[in-house]
Amino acid sequence: MKVEAYIHNVKFYETDKMNITHHSNYVRWMEEARINFMEKVGCDYRELEKVGISSPVVSVKCDFIKTTTFGDDVYIYVSVKKFNGVRFWVSYEMKCNNEIVLTAESQHCFVKDNMQIINLKKEVPDYYNRLADASKSCDTKKVDSD
Amino acid sequence: MKVEAYIHNVKFYETDKMNITHHSNYVRWMEEARINFMEKVGCDYRELEKVGISSPVVSVKCDFIKTTTFGDDVYIYVSVKKFNGVRFWVSYEMKCNNEIVLTAESQHCFVKDNMQIINLKKEVPDYYNRLADASKSCDTKKVDSD
Amino acid sequence: MKVEAYIHNVKFYETDKMNITHHSNYVRWMEEARINFMEKVGCDYRELEKVGISSPVVSVKCDFIKTTTFGDDVYIYVSVKKFNGVRFWVSYEMKCNNEIVLTAESQHCFVKDNMQIINLKKEVPDYYNRLADASKSCDTKKVDSD
Amino acid sequence: MKVEAYIHNVKFYETDKMNITHHSNYVRWMEEARINFMEKVGCDYRELEKVGISSPVVSVKCDFIKTTTFGDDVYIYVSVKKFNGVRFWVSYEMKCNNEIVLTAESQHCFVKDNMQIINLKKEVPDYYNRLADASKSCDTKKVDSD
Repeated sequence: MKVEAYIHNVKFYETDKMNITHHSNYVRWMEEARINFMEKVGCDYRELEKVGISSPVVSVKCDFIKTTTFGDDVYIYVSVKKFNGVRFWVSYEMKCNNEIVLTAESQHCFVKDNMQIINLKKEVPDYYNRLADASKSCDTKKVDSD
Repeated sequence: MKVEAYIHNVKFYETDKMNITHHSNYVRWMEEARINFMEKVGCDYRELEKVGISSPVVSVKCDFIKTTTFGDDVYIYVSVKKFNGVRFWVSYEMKCNNEIVLTAESQHCFVKDNMQIINLKKEVPDYYNRLADASKSCDTKKVDSD
Repeated sequence: MKVEAYIHNVKFYETDKMNITHHSNYVRWMEEARINFMEKVGCDYRELEKVGISSPVVSVKCDFIKTTTFGDDVYIYVSVKKFNGVRFWVSYEMKCNNEIVLTAESQHCFVKDNMQIINLKKEVPDYYNRLADASKSCDTKKVDSD
Repeated sequence: MKVEAYIHNVKFYETDKMNITHHSNYVRWMEEARINFMEKVGCDYRELEKVGISSPVVSVKCDFIKTTTFGDDVYIYVSVKKFNGVRFWVSYEMKCNNEIVLTAESQHCFVKDNMQIINLKKEVPDYYNRLADASKSCDTKKVDSD
């Protein structure tokens, strides 16, 4: 399955006095694009929320390659590196004017309302199966960057 | 009772490409200063949270008089215009380098977890009495701007 | 001319611990919708930037009527209340699930790089004429809310 | 030289609907603490700005170990891993209630207004010498975490 790139148009309020997008915003766009990807492959994040599960970020790693600024359309390509029900590894590539501006990775776990770590395989096997399948077969990268 | 001004040092990430503080941040600083004021007069906001009460913003009104930027110390003076247990009217004056940079007002209600509006006088009479007393007798404005 | 409503999908990072959109974000969406409106009526804000003009916010006033949260599509209707080359008055109505969630107003001036206030009529008469015409004839409200 | 930890009190608007600090804020606090560190060791960032130099972020890497929330005091310990005039490597440890909540690293370069990479050793040798000395001898970690 091919998922279209998620496009974020850079807002005026996302710039800083260097006249570029403040770097903290890319971490927010990773979240936007990841949530959009999950929805597009049939694994809406709000489905987890409805059964009391949330998904905190365990780590992020960003390499800022080029700057962007107000008005730019940033194309965000998401792919799942690994998913085992307990951890979810996602990678990102962002392009602007056909040039790579950022590569990044994030890692996530899944918790119940009391912040106890759970395994989606046990808690929500149906959702787990769908996300595991999508993790293997879905990718935005190849569609748009070719 | 005299409450000291709340000081917010403008962060780099709060600036925008105009080289000034983005105006949306002043709304956030109003919240910071209001919560600080409540704590200083013995009415910590988290005390409400512990009994399942929160306080959404009903309205805000800001007049931006001068700009500020990265590194500036902004002195925020809070005073309660009115408080009747159901609504809470707060006014703000912000100064930088002894000049007024913003005047503002906000209005708040109080709700239970289901977003139903409540009267603090009935729900938490002790907290109500303390905040009512402080609303009359406390003020940051007169201390620091003289 | 009829301009389509600007749609903002509420992001996870725009929520707060009350489980609702933090109120400061509406001020940012006003900016998004205003800039989108200007672009759609042929008065792209970046056109001003290219000649060294920017447009600081002079005042904002928001009435928060209903809450929104993660995943909601917020329809933003922009209309120009008044424009005289020196000041620009804009009003906003935001709807979610066909209910009004916010009404707001903002006021803007125009400055050169040194923050000196200018009159667009004198500085950029062509741009002024286009924005003046659009201010009278363009409106998003009537299209989408009927 | 011993630099005191930088303390960030978590703001209400920094929380998200999970009832915790949104992870993107830690990237902003790294900036706050880094800028504070530079000022405290006599290398104020604004000194670079005055001569037209800025310092974009090249990479960030964060491990989120525990959550924090509204009202928490987060102690941020900064140390310079390496500085050679062209690149600046900084590491961070954040503690709350005496427990580590985050470890992180960031990498920075230095540019002139046209985003061309420069060497501080050549451009501002006096500043370079001060920051090089501080990088070797200053540390916040050891003071506060013992």
